[in-house]
Amino acid sequence: MKRGRLLYAQSGGVTAVINATACAVIETARKHRIDVLAARNGIVGALREELIDTAKESKAAITALRYTPGGAFGSCRYKLKSLEQNRAQYERLIEVLRAHDIRWFLYNGGNDSADTALKISAIGRELDYPINVIGVPKTVDNDLAVTDCCPGFGSVAKYTAVSVAEASLDVESMCESSTKVFIIEVMGRHAGWIAAAAGLAARADGDPPHLILFPEIPFDEEKFLARVKATVERVGYCTIAASEGIKNPQGQFLAEAGTRDAFGHTQLGGVAPLLANLVRDKLGYKYHWALPDYLQRSARHLASKTDAEQAYAVGKAAVEYALAGHNAVMPVIVRTSDAPYRWKIASAPLNAVANHEKKLPKNFISRDGYGITAAARRYLEPLIRGEDAPKYAKDGLPGYVRLRKHLLAKKLPAYEIS
Amino acid sequence: MKRGRLLYAQSGGVTAVINATACAVIETARKHRIDVLAARNGIVGALREELIDTAKESKAAITALRYTPGGAFGSCRYKLKSLEQNRAQYERLIEVLRAHDIRWFLYNGGNDSADTALKISAIGRELDYPINVIGVPKTVDNDLAVTDCCPGFGSVAKYTAVSVAEASLDVESMCESSTKVFIIEVMGRHAGWIAAAAGLAARADGDPPHLILFPEIPFDEEKFLARVKATVERVGYCTIAASEGIKNPQGQFLAEAGTRDAFGHTQLGGVAPLLANLVRDKLGYKYHWALPDYLQRSARHLASKTDAEQAYAVGKAAVEYALAGHNAVMPVIVRTSDAPYRWKIASAPLNAVANHEKKLPKNFISRDGYGITAAARRYLEPLIRGEDAPKYAKDGLPGYVRLRKHLLAKKLPAYEIS
Repeated sequence: MKRGRLLYAQSGGVTAVINATACAVIETARKHRIDVLAARNGIVGALREELIDTAKESKAAITALRYTPGGAFGSCRYKLKSLEQNRAQYERLIEVLRAHDIRWFLYNGGNDSADTALKISAIGRELDYPINVIGVPKTVDNDLAVTDCCPGFGSVAKYTAVSVAEASLDVESMCESSTKVFIIEVMGRHAGWIAAAAGLAARADGDPPHLILFPEIPFDEEKFLARVKATVERVGYCTIAASEGIKNPQGQFLAEAGTRDAFGHTQLGGVAPLLANLVRDKLGYKYHWALPDYLQRSARHLASKTDAEQAYAVGKAAVEYALAGHNAVMPVIVRTSDAPYRWKIASAPLNAVANHEKKLPKNFISRDGYGITAAARRYLEPLIRGEDAPKYAKDGLPGYVRLRKHLLAKKLPAYEIS
Repeated sequence: MKRGRLLYAQSGGVTAVINATACAVIETARKHRIDVLAARNGIVGALREELIDTAKESKAAITALRYTPGGAFGSCRYKLKSLEQNRAQYERLIEVLRAHDIRWFLYNGGNDSADTALKISAIGRELDYPINVIGVPKTVDNDLAVTDCCPGFGSVAKYTAVSVAEASLDVESMCESSTKVFIIEVMGRHAGWIAAAAGLAARADGDPPHLILFPEIPFDEEKFLARVKATVERVGYCTIAASEGIKNPQGQFLAEAGTRDAFGHTQLGGVAPLLANLVRDKLGYKYHWALPDYLQRSARHLASKTDAEQAYAVGKAAVEYALAGHNAVMPVIVRTSDAPYRWKIASAPLNAVANHEKKLPKNFISRDGYGITAAARRYLEPLIRGEDAPKYAKDGLPGYVRLRKHLLAKKLPAYEIS
């Protein structure tokens, strides 16, 4: 019985658990005897008719996907233009779907992807091609609307909190005669969700991190230096978790403002080295800084169990919604209780998600601007709970999988991405 | 029966597993009903008569030590002067030992500590104070002589290999439209042991890391850029593991040579941002870079089981050697077989260890200078084998312990460290 196929695509920055969603999509579709195609490198591959036949992947490989970081089918940063600007692109997409008998399209991404998914659903209706489009949430930035949290965030939050706790124990051991100020720079250019998660490392008053620098709070150099000094004098050292997105009072990103090297180039990346510079010049303390960059969002070895389970659950629900004939919706995470933490999956209309941005609530940041509140802790803590370690091979490395990624034969003429 | 006490001190940069050694020392001594004192902040605390009474720590706390990173009693970077230059300091140390009936001294550190331990043993004999001094190996740098490997290294090696594998999966997912060059900077200012360990992430030809930059190989800008370009063209992206200690052909550290900011300050830290700059300016590729810094040596959550077991074993052996009356020796790790990997503990004279440095063997670096050989793999791989995760608390964080660190009452006049 030929019932049409399901197309799955990954979009935007990948996470430690986006493949858990992919795994759920494929496992659930297989249960319903539906073939899953996956776009190679996201929507770009769909446009180019580069479609991976997931039926060629073994059951073991799909199981291993659940524990493999990165985006197994490839992702991309590519936003379709508006329908008015590039209608041909949407028409091409429908052509590809039609050529391969694709009836269900699952788009796994953030805000932009929800918007694209919505448009594809609309154009399908307009062109009289029946396609059920489901958005599937994913982003380490945790900034999607409607859903209580975003798959991918809990794991980067756990990585950040654990790393802050561990590195601080190191610094604490040696602060009397060595490093006194330690700065860790975390992702989150526009919202301080990950910076806030660093605060989970502190279980008791005085525990590190001693200062969190949020993008929501303009950076006040004098106040910052005074706090660092006071902390070093009181605790012996000072751990700082700084968001990459902190801004000066003029609203410029600190990492971009007035930092040119000897050749006039903008200095590369890094709020952490800038802050370290400041601490050295103004306070004279010995410092160290870390910038985990991609390590924080790919650390599948330290994934949060809550996060991995939610990533799987949204993938499973997406397939079930699609097969039940839903369209232009997204499975979202609904928190039904803080303590004990309970959640369930519900369906939300894509237009409630697309192009909205969930900000870090004001009452999550402590009054002094350098810490998190009890409300933040109540929200964040369940998201890093539980471990979900991958199996390790005998060689000491996790058993991550690379798929075969067998491409279907093309049926359409080549297409140039504009 | 009063049999004297044992003093334990941690020295130099801490590791993810130095507390596993501390745990072994205390657990083994307790079995022999010997009281263990621990110097607060290493040798500096011994000189100041700041002695922690480990009997005040619960059994559960000592058990948890095995899984806690950092140095639980505090460490320091302080090298005693030579006997000729500061004899008074050595005499003070003997005075402290005598005042607290300390018969055994275990010094847990690297090359310098082995040297200090040797001197303390000598001065004890000279001053007619019977003290058995045992050096206990520890260093992430893996540069101690005689021992096959150093406790602390295996875990940073595992962290590095896993991080390279994980971040590379992330980069690989998106390289078609986004980041093409990823650089991770690793510790090892004078030897490429940790850089070499990054190479373990590559299981098959073409696997990341594609280039390793060793401090042993002068940095050749042109050749480097050509290799990066060729790799991006062949594989789609290029992962580079760079030692913080790489030097230009003139022998200067790259991170120090000619990198001043707009104010004339030496640019802070980081070979990685320098290389990223170069890649951007000369090749125009989109890049990302990571600098895990202390995260790499404190990541107890990802410790190697081999490493943790060896860290425990040297602590246990050190106590047994001490109580058996050995002096001026160090328990070292002897590899008896590569495959299957087998090791045992043996006793080595401290003067064979002190002030020597184990270099990365030339035959560990591939002919082209950018990779590791089969010989390197044979040596390194067993050291990252096995996992030894800490227990996690309900809040999602590892159950790391902070000790009470109850100080003994002082019996001597205050002492100023010169």
